[in-house]
Amino acid sequence: MSGVIRALVWNEYYAERKVEAIRSVYPDGIHGQVASALNAAPGILAKTATLDEPEHGLTEEVLAQTDVLFWWGHSLHSLVSDEVAERVVERVRDGMGFVALHSAHASKPFSRLLGTRTGKLRWHEEGLKTRLWKIDYSHPITEGIGDCFELEHEETYGEHFDIPAPESLVFVSWFPSGEVFRSGCCWTRGGRVFFFQPGHETFPTYYDENVKRVLVNAARWAARPDRITYICDETKPLEKID
Amino acid sequence: MSGVIRALVWNEYYAERKVEAIRSVYPDGIHGQVASALNAAPGILAKTATLDEPEHGLTEEVLAQTDVLFWWGHSLHSLVSDEVAERVVERVRDGMGFVALHSAHASKPFSRLLGTRTGKLRWHEEGLKTRLWKIDYSHPITEGIGDCFELEHEETYGEHFDIPAPESLVFVSWFPSGEVFRSGCCWTRGGRVFFFQPGHETFPTYYDENVKRVLVNAARWAARPDRITYICDETKPLEKID
Amino acid sequence: MSGVIRALVWNEYYAERKVEAIRSVYPDGIHGQVASALNAAPGILAKTATLDEPEHGLTEEVLAQTDVLFWWGHSLHSLVSDEVAERVVERVRDGMGFVALHSAHASKPFSRLLGTRTGKLRWHEEGLKTRLWKIDYSHPITEGIGDCFELEHEETYGEHFDIPAPESLVFVSWFPSGEVFRSGCCWTRGGRVFFFQPGHETFPTYYDENVKRVLVNAARWAARPDRITYICDETKPLEKID
Amino acid sequence: MSGVIRALVWNEYYAERKVEAIRSVYPDGIHGQVASALNAAPGILAKTATLDEPEHGLTEEVLAQTDVLFWWGHSLHSLVSDEVAERVVERVRDGMGFVALHSAHASKPFSRLLGTRTGKLRWHEEGLKTRLWKIDYSHPITEGIGDCFELEHEETYGEHFDIPAPESLVFVSWFPSGEVFRSGCCWTRGGRVFFFQPGHETFPTYYDENVKRVLVNAARWAARPDRITYICDETKPLEKID
Repeated sequence: MSGVIRALVWNEYYAERKVEAIRSVYPDGIHGQVASALNAAPGILAKTATLDEPEHGLTEEVLAQTDVLFWWGHSLHSLVSDEVAERVVERVRDGMGFVALHSAHASKPFSRLLGTRTGKLRWHEEGLKTRLWKIDYSHPITEGIGDCFELEHEETYGEHFDIPAPESLVFVSWFPSGEVFRSGCCWTRGGRVFFFQPGHETFPTYYDENVKRVLVNAARWAARPDRITYICDETKPLEKID
Repeated sequence: MSGVIRALVWNEYYAERKVEAIRSVYPDGIHGQVASALNAAPGILAKTATLDEPEHGLTEEVLAQTDVLFWWGHSLHSLVSDEVAERVVERVRDGMGFVALHSAHASKPFSRLLGTRTGKLRWHEEGLKTRLWKIDYSHPITEGIGDCFELEHEETYGEHFDIPAPESLVFVSWFPSGEVFRSGCCWTRGGRVFFFQPGHETFPTYYDENVKRVLVNAARWAARPDRITYICDETKPLEKID
Repeated sequence: MSGVIRALVWNEYYAERKVEAIRSVYPDGIHGQVASALNAAPGILAKTATLDEPEHGLTEEVLAQTDVLFWWGHSLHSLVSDEVAERVVERVRDGMGFVALHSAHASKPFSRLLGTRTGKLRWHEEGLKTRLWKIDYSHPITEGIGDCFELEHEETYGEHFDIPAPESLVFVSWFPSGEVFRSGCCWTRGGRVFFFQPGHETFPTYYDENVKRVLVNAARWAARPDRITYICDETKPLEKID
Repeated sequence: MSGVIRALVWNEYYAERKVEAIRSVYPDGIHGQVASALNAAPGILAKTATLDEPEHGLTEEVLAQTDVLFWWGHSLHSLVSDEVAERVVERVRDGMGFVALHSAHASKPFSRLLGTRTGKLRWHEEGLKTRLWKIDYSHPITEGIGDCFELEHEETYGEHFDIPAPESLVFVSWFPSGEVFRSGCCWTRGGRVFFFQPGHETFPTYYDENVKRVLVNAARWAARPDRITYICDETKPLEKID
């Protein structure tokens, strides 16, 4: 990795084109706004890719030039080809960071990396208020974030969320209808994986200052400088120890 | 450990004697009700001890006959002698289970075992409703508990709770005033340690069927059959390996 | 789950039939010896299944009657059908225990549950001595096992082992040629998952008393009594909290 | 924290003054060599403090100007005053990093932060070779370190090491006499805590290039930029959520 973090923001880019009310929130697509938030931070260079591009914009060449991949998907998970999904997963296993945004909990790459039914959770979408509480004070992803922050309107997600126990539990969300949710979770699968729950397409979540700070922090955390360069799988006795 | 789990329920036993409204909830003391819930389960024999007894009822002999110690304290933490607190901690390091109930988060044994300022958290006590969500489905302490359960009146506890990251996060609580709280947490410190948040003295929490089930499950989990019998700290080269 | 743990021991059952030297070690197959060790323990009823059976002996009906599945495979991982592998994985997600023995680190079910390249590790097979050290003293799988135990001849496995950080690290192995290896590891993926490294087909590992004790402990730990019966994934607002 | 990491290297500084053979290895004391290694790295400014200084060189003022404290102690743990030990622990709880070197596993600050009998482990000191294996590939402390590295002569430490399960297991060591040891371990106690096993006073361990790299990485990891500035412990209902 050079000194600059090379981020790639992937989006299925469907609702923003089909639904006027959503387009008005994200005229450049959710990927456009997320990339804009990342590009506003020093040391991050963010590009975008979408489902309709050849190979979904995720060729070997593109992924080889990516330090951290952000993924937003919701209704078209099944249209992502198994080949591209596996390619993404393999790159993460090599060390690329992966940030799953909102409904990407049900995406192919995320579920394959985690191994559980990550699509399973409780949800309803009246656009209630939510409050995200910082749980892991020591985590770089919380840098600059206060004890908690609120979003006026979000989709409600609730436990049980069918994920492996996070290595770090960064945020837990509160919803007025009685749910709690592990809304910021980290794992390692070769590369670093972060799930961040807010970001329903009908709400201006990715314009929020706290959310943008989390996205930037996540890019810096997930795009770790020290890639895995060697994993042994050969018959190779070590030199004799005397 | 014999086939029977030997539980000991410790209580500072102050508010129940001094305040009529609290005595009416727990006429036999909180320790009495917790022990009663445990004794109702097959395979558990629960006794009690309180602050005013000689050595707080926690002599070497008593602790040597205890597989799991439940601890309830609130306003008199500082009256527990350092000697007895350290004796309890040493027994946990030898393998005894320790279940910290409600305000025992600020007790001497719990804070010494955990190493952080476990007394630090957000709280207020209007007696609001609370809902406890099961997070770790695989944990024995959740056996028989549904996705969530409610208590009509409890003290509100909120993050940030200054604890080391739990080895298992068993429950997270929701409160209507906007807080979330890691209300069921496990650690290992030689013996097994469980913190369970509900149990404010003015509410009949320990009569609740779900709470009683958690107490019984906690006794069974924390009183593990296989004590640590050997920890090496001598200069003792192993036999030469050829 | 009834009071009896229903274990199923699966084996590709190839080397024992093709190679006389291996058959002489395991005349009834590795599965036969593992099942025998389990059946010798009170409260466990173990059956077997092998690759050559229809659907590899792992029909929906069989898996529905299984509390914990032991898996031994080495050279024929690729002959396990994707359909059956996915069926096993889905059952684990529903709560069935899964114990991956030795080269099963590279099996389809294990790698899909874990999400990394679990097949990657360092290895060589001169049949050196190995010593397994108990790391997690509090873990039920170590019950009855001393500080360490030895096997006179085993295949050498070494780090780096490409697995997600275990939720519990139960054993670490030492090898005279200079390697260490996380040889007993636990995860949760709905059901409980245990990997146990010893068990190369040319050595009588599964006759060892310590190994048999670990197998029995693993069956009891992984076949947990409280299955996941409900995971919410519907739009279902909770009742309004006042 | 300014842009520069302010490290402080503490040493009991006894053996180097009393024993000629040790002084010849570390003429400026172990603290001098560790500080030298840190000061050679860009962005780190390391100072030193020793037992014999007033308040052991660890006044409130000094600690307030310290981002990460390295601690080397062996035979004089008991001479560290409880007051200073507790002061160090409190600063870690506020966010200061703490790196426990070698026999500092038995030091007062480390054991109070961890909560177990951290002094308990297996050891013997013939000065055998050791090999440290990198376990957590994703950890910043391993940056620039290969799969494993060796030290020609070190004290042998072996499991069982009586520590809480590390949040990250960074290194496991191999010793020719048959031991393994969790030689690089991370925890969070407000601030970040790292234990690193090599460093017996009679061997030139802190001159080794890999060891120096680990020390520098540890300083950068433990001296995290985002201190805990607020932990709530007051009765403070949040604003009403509608």
